[in-house]
Amino acid sequence: MRIALAYSGGLDTSIIIPWLMETRPGAEVVAVCADVGQGDDLEQVRAKALASGAKEAYVLDLRERFVTRHIWPALQLGAVYQGRYLLGTALARPVIAQGLAEVAVRVGADAVAHGATGKGNDQVRFEAAMAALLPDMPVIAPWREWTITSRTEAMAYAAAHGVPVDQTPKEPFSRDANLWHISHEGGSLEDVAQPPPPGLLRMSVSPQAAPDAVTEVDVAFQEGVPSALDGMRLAPVALLERLNALAGGAGVGTVDMVEDRLVGVKSRGVYETPGGTVLYAALEALRSVTLDRRARRLLRDLADTYGELLYDGLYFTPSREAIEAAGRVLMAPATGHVRLALYKGNVQILGVEASKSLYDTHIASFDETGGVEHADATGFLRLYTLPLRTAARAGRTAPAAVPTPEPSRVG
Amino acid sequence: MRIALAYSGGLDTSIIIPWLMETRPGAEVVAVCADVGQGDDLEQVRAKALASGAKEAYVLDLRERFVTRHIWPALQLGAVYQGRYLLGTALARPVIAQGLAEVAVRVGADAVAHGATGKGNDQVRFEAAMAALLPDMPVIAPWREWTITSRTEAMAYAAAHGVPVDQTPKEPFSRDANLWHISHEGGSLEDVAQPPPPGLLRMSVSPQAAPDAVTEVDVAFQEGVPSALDGMRLAPVALLERLNALAGGAGVGTVDMVEDRLVGVKSRGVYETPGGTVLYAALEALRSVTLDRRARRLLRDLADTYGELLYDGLYFTPSREAIEAAGRVLMAPATGHVRLALYKGNVQILGVEASKSLYDTHIASFDETGGVEHADATGFLRLYTLPLRTAARAGRTAPAAVPTPEPSRVG
Amino acid sequence: MRIALAYSGGLDTSIIIPWLMETRPGAEVVAVCADVGQGDDLEQVRAKALASGAKEAYVLDLRERFVTRHIWPALQLGAVYQGRYLLGTALARPVIAQGLAEVAVRVGADAVAHGATGKGNDQVRFEAAMAALLPDMPVIAPWREWTITSRTEAMAYAAAHGVPVDQTPKEPFSRDANLWHISHEGGSLEDVAQPPPPGLLRMSVSPQAAPDAVTEVDVAFQEGVPSALDGMRLAPVALLERLNALAGGAGVGTVDMVEDRLVGVKSRGVYETPGGTVLYAALEALRSVTLDRRARRLLRDLADTYGELLYDGLYFTPSREAIEAAGRVLMAPATGHVRLALYKGNVQILGVEASKSLYDTHIASFDETGGVEHADATGFLRLYTLPLRTAARAGRTAPAAVPTPEPSRVG
Amino acid sequence: MRIALAYSGGLDTSIIIPWLMETRPGAEVVAVCADVGQGDDLEQVRAKALASGAKEAYVLDLRERFVTRHIWPALQLGAVYQGRYLLGTALARPVIAQGLAEVAVRVGADAVAHGATGKGNDQVRFEAAMAALLPDMPVIAPWREWTITSRTEAMAYAAAHGVPVDQTPKEPFSRDANLWHISHEGGSLEDVAQPPPPGLLRMSVSPQAAPDAVTEVDVAFQEGVPSALDGMRLAPVALLERLNALAGGAGVGTVDMVEDRLVGVKSRGVYETPGGTVLYAALEALRSVTLDRRARRLLRDLADTYGELLYDGLYFTPSREAIEAAGRVLMAPATGHVRLALYKGNVQILGVEASKSLYDTHIASFDETGGVEHADATGFLRLYTLPLRTAARAGRTAPAAVPTPEPSRVG
Repeated sequence: MRIALAYSGGLDTSIIIPWLMETRPGAEVVAVCADVGQGDDLEQVRAKALASGAKEAYVLDLRERFVTRHIWPALQLGAVYQGRYLLGTALARPVIAQGLAEVAVRVGADAVAHGATGKGNDQVRFEAAMAALLPDMPVIAPWREWTITSRTEAMAYAAAHGVPVDQTPKEPFSRDANLWHISHEGGSLEDVAQPPPPGLLRMSVSPQAAPDAVTEVDVAFQEGVPSALDGMRLAPVALLERLNALAGGAGVGTVDMVEDRLVGVKSRGVYETPGGTVLYAALEALRSVTLDRRARRLLRDLADTYGELLYDGLYFTPSREAIEAAGRVLMAPATGHVRLALYKGNVQILGVEASKSLYDTHIASFDETGGVEHADATGFLRLYTLPLRTAARAGRTAPAAVPTPEPSRVG
Repeated sequence: MRIALAYSGGLDTSIIIPWLMETRPGAEVVAVCADVGQGDDLEQVRAKALASGAKEAYVLDLRERFVTRHIWPALQLGAVYQGRYLLGTALARPVIAQGLAEVAVRVGADAVAHGATGKGNDQVRFEAAMAALLPDMPVIAPWREWTITSRTEAMAYAAAHGVPVDQTPKEPFSRDANLWHISHEGGSLEDVAQPPPPGLLRMSVSPQAAPDAVTEVDVAFQEGVPSALDGMRLAPVALLERLNALAGGAGVGTVDMVEDRLVGVKSRGVYETPGGTVLYAALEALRSVTLDRRARRLLRDLADTYGELLYDGLYFTPSREAIEAAGRVLMAPATGHVRLALYKGNVQILGVEASKSLYDTHIASFDETGGVEHADATGFLRLYTLPLRTAARAGRTAPAAVPTPEPSRVG
Repeated sequence: MRIALAYSGGLDTSIIIPWLMETRPGAEVVAVCADVGQGDDLEQVRAKALASGAKEAYVLDLRERFVTRHIWPALQLGAVYQGRYLLGTALARPVIAQGLAEVAVRVGADAVAHGATGKGNDQVRFEAAMAALLPDMPVIAPWREWTITSRTEAMAYAAAHGVPVDQTPKEPFSRDANLWHISHEGGSLEDVAQPPPPGLLRMSVSPQAAPDAVTEVDVAFQEGVPSALDGMRLAPVALLERLNALAGGAGVGTVDMVEDRLVGVKSRGVYETPGGTVLYAALEALRSVTLDRRARRLLRDLADTYGELLYDGLYFTPSREAIEAAGRVLMAPATGHVRLALYKGNVQILGVEASKSLYDTHIASFDETGGVEHADATGFLRLYTLPLRTAARAGRTAPAAVPTPEPSRVG
Repeated sequence: MRIALAYSGGLDTSIIIPWLMETRPGAEVVAVCADVGQGDDLEQVRAKALASGAKEAYVLDLRERFVTRHIWPALQLGAVYQGRYLLGTALARPVIAQGLAEVAVRVGADAVAHGATGKGNDQVRFEAAMAALLPDMPVIAPWREWTITSRTEAMAYAAAHGVPVDQTPKEPFSRDANLWHISHEGGSLEDVAQPPPPGLLRMSVSPQAAPDAVTEVDVAFQEGVPSALDGMRLAPVALLERLNALAGGAGVGTVDMVEDRLVGVKSRGVYETPGGTVLYAALEALRSVTLDRRARRLLRDLADTYGELLYDGLYFTPSREAIEAAGRVLMAPATGHVRLALYKGNVQILGVEASKSLYDTHIASFDETGGVEHADATGFLRLYTLPLRTAARAGRTAPAAVPTPEPSRVG
């Protein structure tokens, strides 16, 4: 029996290797480590997998796929979950799962395994992706099977089974990092009556710790997709890395929220999405001059639905594809560039330019009529208010219902 | 003929008084000035109305009505327009229009008049409110009738008709202020390629100009309605005024955006809503621990619809009342208090406490099972992924569609 | 140990009684039979419960509660699931569960039990209601515990445990009946390539079998709630029973559909909702003359969300209450009456009258201007089309994009 | 000056020809008659245009374009307006306007003209399309300019200007016909307290008048687009014509409703869409077995938005294109065929077959476990009901709130 394991290099997934071999005698474990920009030394991770007993270990560089096929579409739509979460972990799971599925097919695996626990969203996202890609492939989730429940037990198991263990102290938080974001959960964050502890952040500094200086950036977009930074065309991964550095340094992009997990649990998370926060703000500014009102509302509704779909692990569905198709059409005119100031946690728009802008100074102006005749407004208003007058006359908001003015300060 | 005029004390509405008397010979003008917290000296405004030829002048203190009946319901819902605008002007128009309607009925007016121009939203909001309250009352909109098109012409008309004129230079921006916000439009803001000019702000300072110190506030809510600030019960108007001062001083609450007006025109506005921004953030934090996931999504959808309704001047409609009724039910458990840090434009949540919190540390915890059995998750996932597996087996996302792994860095 | 059992009188719930006593030695079973208008002889059902070993048996007449608190609100909203299902079973489950909870509290039960199977919606609705009403009460679902899998086994178990068994042959379909509807599932209906078999219907006849005569009915509503039939005030239950008879006799109200169950399974069902279908059509006609366009769209969106909530068993939630609150506001003007013709499956509107109608013949008329000046339309259109012209000028739908006319039949 | 006129051949558009020449001295009128399947003799119409003074007259056969580019996408989405109207007139206006724009460009027209009146939707749809296609082209709407207000005056004008006039009596209704539908408005229909008069229908018979026999049809779809009827591949126009005949003969597809026009007016219309009604029902049946639950809800929401867009004349917008793009993705698996019975106004599904069906008899079955383990349901329900239990424990739906059972018939 051959099992393809989604492998991260941490203690938790490392002990899964001997555990699988122990509970499935004769099993061979193929470790698959996906590079989505988490920043670990993946050659070292690969070595650790082999040292922990894996028969083979693959390292997949999925960074560009992650950015272009997963992050850019979500950005194009402006997708969020519960109004604030920029979906960092949710976006990465399907790429990782797809990479694992590809290796599983290539090596002829009989099952796949993952290290997600039984209360989180990641098990959902992982298994939903696998159900869509390899519907008949058994999925092993050791955390829902074994009796290990603490780090101490895990370390004892590791020691007993020859798994190399770092002597670093237990991380106080559960973290997930990739090119787009890093999340922090657990530990002292579980007390919602308290602020995040100092020293929590990894990709950025707090607004308070950021330098007292403005960082200006200029982001260019082609049809709603980032194409250049400060006038320089950059490959997607490089662009995002560079913007993360600039925005993180300016204290931009931290969200501290309580969210509703798919499995019915409220959970508090702190998310750092520095570059992403800038891109969302910049693209929204570009949208505001290139999309009409109905298109903006449609996009917003679609983005909310898309955010829920991704959060719920339903990436490999026609609904996701359909919303992306609509998003591409709506964002086709969003070509242009946006200048922004990053300052101690603030993102300020300095200017927007777009070749197909719908913003027309002459029409907008308070000083010119700009193509809008005042008489037209009169006609517009007569028709616009007609249903209100009809309703009022039908006794809905009768004049009698109007209270007499309140006495105070009546002259 | 008696005409009730919505009167602000500015040059534009002042010349309307003699113009009405000139174009409607024999007309008596009753000036109605609504106090919604704009901060002008309204006794002086009243005197100016009389000096400009008004027969009578009323000053109505509508501040508490404005806050409790208009602002609090919008806050409770979290209503916004186009994702960013906290509706400051849109919220105030119906109160002002209702005040005018009340005086018009009391004085037996034959018509009402207003000073809104022909390209903006305010004419819509004013006339829509009037259509609902007094459907048979004629509305006079001088800016859509007369030939005056510039400030110079207006000043000449004032001089010729005995209207007192301040010798202050022309304001470079069009502004609208009330207890909730101040808006800035026109002038150099019409160039979206440029940032707002220095010195624009009135209710707040820029993040850059704010002091390098954290202001902590504690906001208490009863069923989604603000009830106390820093532990002190305050009347609604006082609470909002105090929070405006604190938040404005910390550089909080400025939005710079291009919005779509109802009349099909894109317009750039800068909005300062300092206290409101803090209240929105605080209440969202309270919502996040007291509302379930479906309730949050329902509320968000309702808030978007409510935002459009108010923006479009449709306050006096059953749809608005219905959404408020739903909002009251959904927000009934939102009782508690939220501590926040205001720092140079940032609003950070320091802690949330709610008597009916749905956030349960034991359930959320990464370290405890907290009532969620791992085996339950397995069952949940088998059913949850069933439609995905069915779709995959029906050939929708066939394994064949999975590309082989990309070659880079495969071990 | 005392267990309150939701009891229907059928074989399946009858054998649960001895099974509970066998598997929970010392357990006393209290059978609770809810009357929601299913038409069984409930005194006989009560006797059967006692004969099967129940310690006590309650019969609860929940019919009026069902109609006034559950059916009328759904009707008021026009709630449907997946565009067609009028929610008959979904509406009844919470009433039944609440009745059971009430008895469970009264008799001091230690657990509750139900006879729903493991693939359906009813287990969800039952257990969701119980979780909301009695969150700490254990729920026993024998069908998910025991090893009985066929009717033959169930009959053997009954015989062995002294449960009286009717010698009627196995029903070929799974049915659920109440005052609002009857559903049919299973058996030959599971083949979606085949039509429902002859003889399936119970509350109505097929259009083909209905008499070739028109039945006229007149339904009156007060604020969206049915109040009279053919001019006669009737109590809610009586009104619905009478309308069921009339509509069922005319072949009205059968839906044959494939729906998506909450648990991820597609299922084919045939539903008869004769009276309900007439009430939905009549009230929609009344809505069409008493609600404005935005209110109609808002109501439709709310009705879709409400339909999903109820279908998913989430009756005891703030979202459900909030939507009902909004619905009451929106439907407040829906007072009037509607005459309809029922003919061989068709429901035709013969006339609508409403005291607060917004329909105005003079305004609607093609022959009169009716308050709409043609010049107003010109102004309206200039503003309405402004964004389209702006977009076209920005190169979005350039004239060049217009193809030259196709050659056929050009003169 | 050259004016391209949307010409129908009726009295109203015929007198526009001399009126344009009279009011714009020197003007040449180019009449453009679009064939969208209205069934008139268009060569005769062309001759009448020339006889009425037109310099040139074009007849454009737009039928196939109408069906494939306009009707099929709306059908694919299941688009409706206000829940009932299948958009017959709204769908045809953009095709006609585009045909006119094409001719206007070809002949170098200086303006276009149309015969829509000032209270309807058609002026909106026509002018919105023109604004998008030819934003700088002046539009002349004689009905909003001239003083003719009655048929008698129009006939007098015709007689005085040499326009040939049929001596047929005035049509009692305003009608609009095309391949998809015919609408009836005005006349005695304006009294909503009365049913449609006998003899109104044109494309169909009433259910009462339909023969007492079942017509069976089999409709095949490829990716949501009709491809064959009764096993025969037919060109789009032919397929629709044939289905119209079958369905119309069976009394299928009449809707009698009060709708809200864009211009704020309620209007009563009777619509016959016989073939379309069958196609909507058939495709919905196919959707029900080939789309998952989220996809169905997404499609329904998009269809509602699409219906409003089209109704409001906003065909030439990115929103419309975006929704169609999403619809194509969602409906890609909707390939199969549906058998239906048409009987006296009823459309009954006899069977659905789809190559990529998600309906799985084994999973749906009441008699088999079909891949759903009962234990899985237990786990699913524990997680699903977790938020409800949490809410209940937080005091939201306290057991104390449960009323004791009502006394009636308690055993």
